[in-house]
Amino acid sequence: MPTDPNLEHGRHPERGVADGAIIRAILESQLICHVAFTVDGWPYAVPTVHALDGDHLLIHGSTLSRMLGGLAEGVPACVTVTAVDGIVAARSAFNHSINYRSAMVFGTATPIRDHDHKVSALRAIVEHVLPGRWAEVRPPTVQELRATEIVSIPLGRATAKVRGGGPVDTPADGRRQVWSGVIPVQMLLGTPTHVPDDVAKLPLPDSVASVIESTGQ
Amino acid sequence: MPTDPNLEHGRHPERGVADGAIIRAILESQLICHVAFTVDGWPYAVPTVHALDGDHLLIHGSTLSRMLGGLAEGVPACVTVTAVDGIVAARSAFNHSINYRSAMVFGTATPIRDHDHKVSALRAIVEHVLPGRWAEVRPPTVQELRATEIVSIPLGRATAKVRGGGPVDTPADGRRQVWSGVIPVQMLLGTPTHVPDDVAKLPLPDSVASVIESTGQ
Repeated sequence: MPTDPNLEHGRHPERGVADGAIIRAILESQLICHVAFTVDGWPYAVPTVHALDGDHLLIHGSTLSRMLGGLAEGVPACVTVTAVDGIVAARSAFNHSINYRSAMVFGTATPIRDHDHKVSALRAIVEHVLPGRWAEVRPPTVQELRATEIVSIPLGRATAKVRGGGPVDTPADGRRQVWSGVIPVQMLLGTPTHVPDDVAKLPLPDSVASVIESTGQ
Repeated sequence: MPTDPNLEHGRHPERGVADGAIIRAILESQLICHVAFTVDGWPYAVPTVHALDGDHLLIHGSTLSRMLGGLAEGVPACVTVTAVDGIVAARSAFNHSINYRSAMVFGTATPIRDHDHKVSALRAIVEHVLPGRWAEVRPPTVQELRATEIVSIPLGRATAKVRGGGPVDTPADGRRQVWSGVIPVQMLLGTPTHVPDDVAKLPLPDSVASVIESTGQ
C-alpha cells in the first residue's frame, strides 16, 4: 500500500469540493466511470459501470476481466466520474473552458463474495443504470453470479472539482463585441431501438418510460 | 520506461478494434478524455480536453497543473476517450449492458514548446471543442501561451473496444414476454446560457449555431 493519494487541488483550488453530498451526486449522475490502475508500470484508464452502496462505490465487471482481477487483489485504484455540463465560449481563445463536475475516489477494492451481498450489489448496478429495472427482469442465477465480479471501494478518500458559471474574460476583452456564453451539454436518452419483434408491441416498462420522460423526450 | 502496455482485450476480445480510423473517430467524438498516470504508487484518472494533431494526441492544461507537469516530464500515461451510446436492457439482470465506444492511447508525452507549434496546438484544442471558434476570438498572447501547457502523445500504441447492437439474451430468456431493447444515449448541446448583457443581442456566431444545429435543437 503506497502512501496516501494527493487529494489537494494544485490548479484552480477554488473549484475543489470536499462535500460528501456533492461527491455522491456526481457519482450518481453518470452512467459510467473510468477506473485508473497500474500494471507493470503502465497506468490504465478503463471505463466501466459503477453504483453507490452506502458509503462504498461498487465497480462491476466479469470474473474474466483482468481489471476486475487486479482490483479484487487490492491494487490501488482511482475511480473518476465526470459530468460535462457546458462549453464555455470566451472572447479570447485562451479563456475558453468546459463546465464540468468531476469526482475521484481513491482506494483499494474488496471483492464481494457473500451471496446475498453480491445479489444486492448487482441490483445496485442495474438500478444505477436503469432505476426500477431490477423488478422487471429475471434475477441472476448462481452461475451468473459466479461469472460476475463486483468490488467495493470505500468513499473515505474522495474529492471533487467543479467549474460552473459563465465565461471569464479579461477587462480588455470584455470590451470586445464578440459573442460569448455557455453552451449547455446534456445527456439525452432517445426512443428505444433494437427491440426484438416478439416484444415490440409490449408497452414500455416503467423503468424505460421514466428515464426517457425525465430527459424530456 | 516500462515494458509495453498490454493492448490485448482479455474479456470480450470480439469487441476489440485496431482500426486507426475508428480509433481516431472515437477520439474526435467526445469533448473530454480521462488521463491515467501514476504518482507515488497511486494511479490518477483526471479529465481534461484533448485534440488530434496528425498522428498525435494533444492534451491541454495549465503550466501550473501537476498532471501536465508530470506528463511533460514523460511519465507513462493512458488517455481514454469513451462514448456512451446506449443502455442495453435485456430480459435478465445479468445480460444488461452498455453500448459504448472506447479508445485508449498509451505513451509518454512530449511538451510542445515551439511557439508556432504551440499556437497551432492550442488552435486544435479550441477547434476540437467548438469547430470554427478560433477565427472568431482573440488569439493568444505570448504570456497566455507561456501559461498553457500542451503535450503530445503519439497514437502508435492505441486500441479501442466497441459494443453495439441489441440485447443478447439466453434462448430460455428469449421466450419471456419482458420488454427489451436499447435506449440510445446522445450528447445534446442546448440553448446558450450565461451570455453577458453587452453581447446578448449579437447573432449566434457560426461556431455555436452549427454545433447546436448539428445536435438537432
